[in-house]
Amino acid sequence: MGRRTIITGVPGVGKTTVIDGALKKLEEEGITYQSINFGSFMFDVASHEGKVKDRDQIRKLDRNVQKELQRMAAKAIAAIAGNVIIDTHCSIRTTKGFLPGLPEWVLTELKPDMLILVETDEDQILQRRLKDPTRIRDMEGGKSIGEHQQFNRMIAGAIATQTGCMVKFVKNQDFLLDQAIQDMTESLR
Amino acid sequence: MGRRTIITGVPGVGKTTVIDGALKKLEEEGITYQSINFGSFMFDVASHEGKVKDRDQIRKLDRNVQKELQRMAAKAIAAIAGNVIIDTHCSIRTTKGFLPGLPEWVLTELKPDMLILVETDEDQILQRRLKDPTRIRDMEGGKSIGEHQQFNRMIAGAIATQTGCMVKFVKNQDFLLDQAIQDMTESLR
Amino acid sequence: MGRRTIITGVPGVGKTTVIDGALKKLEEEGITYQSINFGSFMFDVASHEGKVKDRDQIRKLDRNVQKELQRMAAKAIAAIAGNVIIDTHCSIRTTKGFLPGLPEWVLTELKPDMLILVETDEDQILQRRLKDPTRIRDMEGGKSIGEHQQFNRMIAGAIATQTGCMVKFVKNQDFLLDQAIQDMTESLR
Repeated sequence: MGRRTIITGVPGVGKTTVIDGALKKLEEEGITYQSINFGSFMFDVASHEGKVKDRDQIRKLDRNVQKELQRMAAKAIAAIAGNVIIDTHCSIRTTKGFLPGLPEWVLTELKPDMLILVETDEDQILQRRLKDPTRIRDMEGGKSIGEHQQFNRMIAGAIATQTGCMVKFVKNQDFLLDQAIQDMTESLR
Repeated sequence: MGRRTIITGVPGVGKTTVIDGALKKLEEEGITYQSINFGSFMFDVASHEGKVKDRDQIRKLDRNVQKELQRMAAKAIAAIAGNVIIDTHCSIRTTKGFLPGLPEWVLTELKPDMLILVETDEDQILQRRLKDPTRIRDMEGGKSIGEHQQFNRMIAGAIATQTGCMVKFVKNQDFLLDQAIQDMTESLR
Repeated sequence: MGRRTIITGVPGVGKTTVIDGALKKLEEEGITYQSINFGSFMFDVASHEGKVKDRDQIRKLDRNVQKELQRMAAKAIAAIAGNVIIDTHCSIRTTKGFLPGLPEWVLTELKPDMLILVETDEDQILQRRLKDPTRIRDMEGGKSIGEHQQFNRMIAGAIATQTGCMVKFVKNQDFLLDQAIQDMTESLR
C-alpha cells in the first residue's frame, strides 16, 4: 500500500512549483508519486456518473450530491496502489465565508498519512499574486491572506486529530525555493 | 429545507446587535430567519422532559443527562423547516477551563450549514464590558479576552472539518457596525 | 467513576514539576489522582501482548498494529476506577512533521473530562532546554518552539470539539511556578 499525502496552500504560495521540484528529486532516488488534483479528479468522477458536463456545473449541484461525489472521489483515490499526492485546499475563500475542502466524509475515505501545508509570509504571497497577470480572482490584502493561512492551520489541527496523519508546515519563502523543495522531499521520502 | 447558521462570539462583542441588524435587512429582502438561543431552547426541552424547574438546575445535572439534553435540543432545532439562526457559544470560560459549547454530539444532530464568529479587537471588547453596568460576570483582562477569541477560532476549524459547514469571521469594530451588519447579511442571504 | 484529565506540554515546559506540585496540594485536601504516562502504559500493553521486548520496537511496528495498541491502552486507562492524569503529547515533532499523540481512536476510548496544556513563552522553554545537560534531543530555535505550542493549541480545539472535554491553558512562567501549580490544582480539584 502506498502513502497518501495531501498538499495544500493558499493561492499564490507556489505550491505546484515546490511539488514539481520535490517529485523530480524523489524520482532521482527511485521514489515515485502520482499527483492528483482533487477538484479535477472529482469532476472526472462526476462526469463519468453523468452528473455534469463541465466543471462549473459541480458548484450548482445539490449539496448532498456534491457530498456524495466528494466521498466517491476520495474512495477512488484511496484505492490507488502506489504513492499519491492529493493537491487540494484546506479551505476556499468565498464571499460568504471559508468553505472547508477536506470535510470529515472526505477524510474518512481518504485516510491520509500526511498533510503538508505550503506557507509563506502574507506579503510575499500578495506580491506573487500581483505579479501574476493570469490571475483573474478577486484581490485581497495581506491581512486577509494571513487570516486565511491561519485558518488553514486550525483545520490542519482538526485533520490531524481526526485521521492521525502527520502535519508538516513547509515554508516557501522568497529566494529559498531550494529549501522548500528540500523540506517537502524529506517529508515525502 | 432551510439553512442552519450558528452565530457565536465572546460576551460583549455585540453579537445580538449585529444579528438584529442583519435580520432587519434580510426581512426587507423577504428572507426570514427564526433566531434560537441554544441555552434557552435546551432549558425548554429539559423542563418539558421534567428534568429541571429552573435554568440553574441544568448545570447540576449528571453529565450524561446534560449530554442527552444537548443532543435532543440539537435534533429538535434541526427539524425546524425554515431558516434558523442558532445563537450560542463556541466555548464558555469557567474557572476550571474552557467548556466547549458545540461538541460532536450537538454538531452531528444540528448539521449546520454555516458558522459565523463575531469578533473584534480585545481592547474594544474590554471597553464595551466596562461600560455595561448590568454585566455582573467576572471581569477579565484584554489578553485573556484575546486568548478566548483565538481558542474559538481553533474550535471553528474543528467544526468546519467535522460538519463541512462554511466559516465566516465577522468583525464588529467600533464605529463600523454597519459594515458588520452588511457582512453578516451577505453570509445569511 | 473518576475523572480523566490529559496533561500535555512541549518538552522542557516543566509539565512534570507542575503536576507533582498540584498532586501534592490535592493530596493534602484528600483528593487523589493516579498519574499515568501514556507512552509507558502503551509499552506495558504491547509487551504483555508479546508484540515488543523494548520500547524502541514500538516505533518499528506496522501502523495498524500501533493503532490497535494505542486503542487498547486508551481503553484500559478508561477502565481505571479513580481519578487519572494521563501524561502525554498533543503532537510530537519529527523530521517529517508533527505526529498527533491524541488521534480520534485514542480519544473515543479515553473519553477525557479535561485537557490541560502547560505552556510558557518560547524563550523560557529554550533557556530551560539549554540548561538541561541530560537533554540529547535535537535543539530547535524559539520560533520553532512557538510554532509547536501554537499547533498544540489547534489540536486542543479539535479535541474539545470531538470529546466535549474542558480545555485549560496553564502558564508555567519563570519565577511563577506557584501560580502554575495553583492553576492546575484548581482545574484538577
